[in-house]
Amino acid sequence: MQNELIAAVDLGSNSFRLEVGRVVEDQIYTLDSLKEAVRLASGLTPERYMDEASQRRALAALAKFGERIRGFAPEQVRAVATNTLRVAKNAAEFLPKAEAALGFPIEIIAGREEARLIYIGAAHSLPLVPHKRLVVDIGGGSTEFIIGKRFEPQSMESLFMGCVSYTGRFFPDGRMDKKRFREAEVAAGKEIQTIAYDYLRLGWKEAVGSSGSARAIADVLELNGLNPGGAVGITRAGMERMKALLIKAGSLDALDLEGLKSDRLPVIPGGLAIMMAVFQELNLERMTYADGALRLGVLYDLLGRFHHSDMRDATVTQFMRRYQVDSAQAARVEQVALTVFRALTPGRADTHPVEHVNDEHFLCWAARLHELGLSVAHNGYHKHGAYILTFADMPGFSKKEQARLAMLVLGHKGKLQKVGGLPYGDVNWLMVFALRLATILLRSRESKPPSEWGVRAGDKGFLLELPGDWLAANPLTAAALSDEVDAWRGVGLTFRLKSRGRGELSGNLTVLPVEGVSAGTDGMAPILTQAA
Amino acid sequence: MQNELIAAVDLGSNSFRLEVGRVVEDQIYTLDSLKEAVRLASGLTPERYMDEASQRRALAALAKFGERIRGFAPEQVRAVATNTLRVAKNAAEFLPKAEAALGFPIEIIAGREEARLIYIGAAHSLPLVPHKRLVVDIGGGSTEFIIGKRFEPQSMESLFMGCVSYTGRFFPDGRMDKKRFREAEVAAGKEIQTIAYDYLRLGWKEAVGSSGSARAIADVLELNGLNPGGAVGITRAGMERMKALLIKAGSLDALDLEGLKSDRLPVIPGGLAIMMAVFQELNLERMTYADGALRLGVLYDLLGRFHHSDMRDATVTQFMRRYQVDSAQAARVEQVALTVFRALTPGRADTHPVEHVNDEHFLCWAARLHELGLSVAHNGYHKHGAYILTFADMPGFSKKEQARLAMLVLGHKGKLQKVGGLPYGDVNWLMVFALRLATILLRSRESKPPSEWGVRAGDKGFLLELPGDWLAANPLTAAALSDEVDAWRGVGLTFRLKSRGRGELSGNLTVLPVEGVSAGTDGMAPILTQAA
Repeated sequence: MQNELIAAVDLGSNSFRLEVGRVVEDQIYTLDSLKEAVRLASGLTPERYMDEASQRRALAALAKFGERIRGFAPEQVRAVATNTLRVAKNAAEFLPKAEAALGFPIEIIAGREEARLIYIGAAHSLPLVPHKRLVVDIGGGSTEFIIGKRFEPQSMESLFMGCVSYTGRFFPDGRMDKKRFREAEVAAGKEIQTIAYDYLRLGWKEAVGSSGSARAIADVLELNGLNPGGAVGITRAGMERMKALLIKAGSLDALDLEGLKSDRLPVIPGGLAIMMAVFQELNLERMTYADGALRLGVLYDLLGRFHHSDMRDATVTQFMRRYQVDSAQAARVEQVALTVFRALTPGRADTHPVEHVNDEHFLCWAARLHELGLSVAHNGYHKHGAYILTFADMPGFSKKEQARLAMLVLGHKGKLQKVGGLPYGDVNWLMVFALRLATILLRSRESKPPSEWGVRAGDKGFLLELPGDWLAANPLTAAALSDEVDAWRGVGLTFRLKSRGRGELSGNLTVLPVEGVSAGTDGMAPILTQAA
Repeated sequence: MQNELIAAVDLGSNSFRLEVGRVVEDQIYTLDSLKEAVRLASGLTPERYMDEASQRRALAALAKFGERIRGFAPEQVRAVATNTLRVAKNAAEFLPKAEAALGFPIEIIAGREEARLIYIGAAHSLPLVPHKRLVVDIGGGSTEFIIGKRFEPQSMESLFMGCVSYTGRFFPDGRMDKKRFREAEVAAGKEIQTIAYDYLRLGWKEAVGSSGSARAIADVLELNGLNPGGAVGITRAGMERMKALLIKAGSLDALDLEGLKSDRLPVIPGGLAIMMAVFQELNLERMTYADGALRLGVLYDLLGRFHHSDMRDATVTQFMRRYQVDSAQAARVEQVALTVFRALTPGRADTHPVEHVNDEHFLCWAARLHELGLSVAHNGYHKHGAYILTFADMPGFSKKEQARLAMLVLGHKGKLQKVGGLPYGDVNWLMVFALRLATILLRSRESKPPSEWGVRAGDKGFLLELPGDWLAANPLTAAALSDEVDAWRGVGLTFRLKSRGRGELSGNLTVLPVEGVSAGTDGMAPILTQAA
């Protein structure tokens, strides 16, 4: 990969991080990353001087990073320091030593600049949505709050509270009880109240946590089943249960929670108390998670090319190129799959416009990427494609969205049992059906689908009607379609293929020309019992 | 993949096959393949007329293939028919119908042309070796014998015996006993005797089976543990045991062997009897297996570009390009890994020249491909690389060789337990060590390894000596090297890192300049107790 390299160094109050990114067109893919648990904030004396030990840890970490990016030009690197260096009285004295160890200049950035960078990073790692987002980043020594829309931050604030400083202040000996949590939450709540009114007035539709604390809390809630109803991310009820477990353990030494990493453990009570206060003061019930926002923001800001369209579209295009997908075939499959899907969901575009458009996006992306795995091998290519989509670094897609794409690609060929776990009536079954039918009809790439066909989803499965003379002229397709009967029976659904003389297609079927869609409803109940 | 497509159609006596290949530079990757169990030979009447039913099956299969390659230009397709159409008296009458169904001309090829194509296919799917090979292809109606070297067939013969015709003649009702096997083996032996003298005089070093029969026998022997000492491929002793199991079952209906597919079952006794006669008359003890030789030969012959170097080198180069490997970094890692490996194996190049050169090849390929998985994601890239190397279509590499490459790539980073299964003293440990050390020393890509170092493999592990001032100047590398102590302890080996003042490297260590290798021996016993 002979592409441009850029690097971000984040001198956080809890840990220092280095991220080396590779620039591919307008996107950044991680090439290497390093993390050192420096815990700078915990080395601050009451008089706000960084002590000797924490300075030593910091310089050792920076020397390691410096080795990794030795030879980079200055314009390829941006190093930013946040709250602890903002407040430490000996920062000016420390900085030249830090810059010498790293080999690059280090900027101590203001809280609002930190907030701006965090928002840019979060916006580049999350799906593009039309609504406003609240991003909350609990750092070691400060917490940033940003409301923004698309790639534009609209309101940015930085409050002087963080997981390291709050743990040191309210849980100094690692002991945790009800009273201490209450005190910490009240203190954090007071800070947040200074911005709550303005923020609540501006409003948002989705809350996102973007720091290590948010990730650690989300991991603990998910892996220990603390969220109600198996919800993902962070919930208020889940945090209440987590707090109860922490209080029950009584001290950090006695704490043993699935998913809590040893470098996060020493700062978890302060992080949890702040997050609970955030939920309380901003009336949140749920929060999702975005990874590595500050570093990613520094990198995209350094790159200086912003996106004005959905990052996911750019990623799919990039992947088609990278894995040499036959784009003409992908476009044919996309068009037919979309036609079939629309025919199967008459009226849904009106009754559930948001969900329907989103599902169509996923179907199109899956169609564009369904042959991705051919770059590995013909044999089992749908499995190889699903593997890549599961593990790949795909800017703009969440892990859950990647899992959905992987499921669609895995299901477009072969046995259907393997897509398992989909409940009966799930809209994804219709998408899998549409993708399978499209790839069967277009297997020979050159061939044209029939000019007339009927397709319908019923209560228990699917019905496909094709002209008999077209089936006779395409025996490979006819054989593949009759294999579909077994494939769908394997998951308890039926697939019926009807062959009719031309011009005699059954009157109660939706008859679709390939170009242009005119999806009428018919007497049969749609399989889709409710929108997903 | 906007590359040139070519297709081979093989109208065999047992099954018809279509293979669509994508041409990438000088190599062919399978894009699609179809198989129809036509069993043309079993439809031959005693007077050698193809009966109605088998003609119908044949035309139906060809019509399916025809749909798949509709739109291909004539020069992109070659269809070849073998023994049954060579001998059927109504072939001339059948051929126009077959060509109409397929949509392309069909050649009935002579036995020696079939043998030539089989050899070309086998040579392109096997590693390039300097010695002669015997390739044996037991078809439905004929068996081809070829001796060749590299990509050149030297002696080609086709004998009139096949698994379909022999099963029909000696096991007509599916019943199997000792007497019938003896009769079939004697008949096949008589055929082979007509060529045995010349072939044995020419000689070969390695025997390869290239047909469905060879694959089926190898699968049964391996999956049922019939080969002595867990050998892979086909052995004489294994076939004796397999024959005993067939006789014990008494009939095909009663036969239930792991790995025997239903479309192969009806022709297995004839195929086994012929293979046993081949071993008997040509004094074989073992045979390996090559896949899809005839179709691959047709495709490479159609492409008209032959290889004069090891196909594996071309494949590795192709993969580096396809997965956008940073070739400068790969070359640096290759050079350092090779230097380390040679330092660890003093004298082995003289005592075991063949094995040593082969191991060096694998180490170089692994070094060139070790970052392959970065194309998927930075996180766990060694695992993604191993996945691709395990499943990819890699011309010239056997599945076992791909597994070795995958193991080296998987082992170059992270925990060592996962490469498991390597016995103590296996040369692959030294290769894994060399690759790990090279990637650690070169992690920052730009950086230079130290100008002097000593490395040595002892009875229980490894010792690395580096200048102290170099370690101090490269703290990231120093930290990574000290992590290696734990990694090697995890598999019961030690890794010791010694830091010395410049010019004071321990006298009993091999001290190597980075450029140019001068691997001296020292007093320590090499870890390599014997060559792999």
